[in-house]
Amino acid sequence: MGDVGRDDAAAHVGRDRGLSAVPAAKAEAAPAGRLAAQIAFLVEADKLKSVLRRTPLTDASRMENSAEHSWHLALAAMTLVEYAPAGVNLGRVLELVTVHDLVEIDAGDTFAHDPEANATKAERELAAAERIFNLLPSDQAARVRALWDEFEAGATEEARFANALDRVQALCQNMQSGGGSWSAHAVTRAQVLTRMAPVEAALPEVWPFIVGVIDRFCAAGVISRSPIAGGET
Amino acid sequence: MGDVGRDDAAAHVGRDRGLSAVPAAKAEAAPAGRLAAQIAFLVEADKLKSVLRRTPLTDASRMENSAEHSWHLALAAMTLVEYAPAGVNLGRVLELVTVHDLVEIDAGDTFAHDPEANATKAERELAAAERIFNLLPSDQAARVRALWDEFEAGATEEARFANALDRVQALCQNMQSGGGSWSAHAVTRAQVLTRMAPVEAALPEVWPFIVGVIDRFCAAGVISRSPIAGGET
Repeated sequence: MGDVGRDDAAAHVGRDRGLSAVPAAKAEAAPAGRLAAQIAFLVEADKLKSVLRRTPLTDASRMENSAEHSWHLALAAMTLVEYAPAGVNLGRVLELVTVHDLVEIDAGDTFAHDPEANATKAERELAAAERIFNLLPSDQAARVRALWDEFEAGATEEARFANALDRVQALCQNMQSGGGSWSAHAVTRAQVLTRMAPVEAALPEVWPFIVGVIDRFCAAGVISRSPIAGGET
Repeated sequence: MGDVGRDDAAAHVGRDRGLSAVPAAKAEAAPAGRLAAQIAFLVEADKLKSVLRRTPLTDASRMENSAEHSWHLALAAMTLVEYAPAGVNLGRVLELVTVHDLVEIDAGDTFAHDPEANATKAERELAAAERIFNLLPSDQAARVRALWDEFEAGATEEARFANALDRVQALCQNMQSGGGSWSAHAVTRAQVLTRMAPVEAALPEVWPFIVGVIDRFCAAGVISRSPIAGGET
């Protein structure tokens, strides 16, 4: 199949047109170069399904990947939007969460409680954004870049809501799997509270739920009350 | 960890409030029963990450799951919206693709070219919708049900665009993996064209690309030109 699959997407566009018995298209074909670039971007994006996070599935059967995580955030946005500030644009939130982790295709998922990896995170992700978004036609590359910048900077209500959902979703994965990345990496209560702080700011009505979960896992000894992370001592 | 994880989500809501040194929430807590139902729904939705489709990842390393597929459709909607009818509501499309496969948690992914499975698909998915959507508070359950009904019926431009994306995405997965479900299940050209027909109607500018890919895989012998599927002879 090597000569059929995995070719440059451009090779597929507009080929063999008119050779088949299929009725002619009702409209002009999309510009070959533009559609080819869009397909190439979508094909490249498939790699996000192979980027693993530190959070497990709720049944703890395997680690979650960043593509399915991004979908879960979209569903969380639709489900929890009533706790966001009035007037928040849900459609914009869905766009933000859909693109927010694309840079991980090159930069990988950076664990929140890994200071060394976080020191180089911004640089790695910026290079990734340059390469991956620019697979798109330039107008669309700029649009996706603006969405990613908005998310990263927490520049709008939509971005702060999306970021808070990112934290709530990870907490739920850890909660349901019996500890997840908290137990695997000996994380402290102070670290988890710092990580979850965007929820308090963006979704104050949800915050008591977050604190309740953290306290339960502290009481069970999964999250340490010590000021120093077990993994760092 | 059994006493901490996987409990009914309701148990977590509002517990231990005020026991911690965390600053008090700035707002009233969300109604415990309502938020618990929303969290329980999001936790249940996690199971979609374990529902496997017949299409592989582009690197053919494993089969795709329905959660990451749904994310890929959202990204495809953002990328290909210029080929949809003018005025299509992208936010609505993103909502449709986010919920369109949730029923597969109970009903499984039904292969398009399996007549026996398709005979019971509607009934199985309806029962799934009843159970899964009704984990949500009733107003939200009705909203998600309306979205799913809209998608299934192709009732709007948004639903027809979303459905066309569902076909384009599967074609790209098969194309890039060297044949995917086409070669695995000895599918014929007529079957693939029938399956892809919604693309011609909803995204006519993209249709020549689709036909070009199909013809390439016919020429390579992956898709059969025979009127009878190999698997059915």
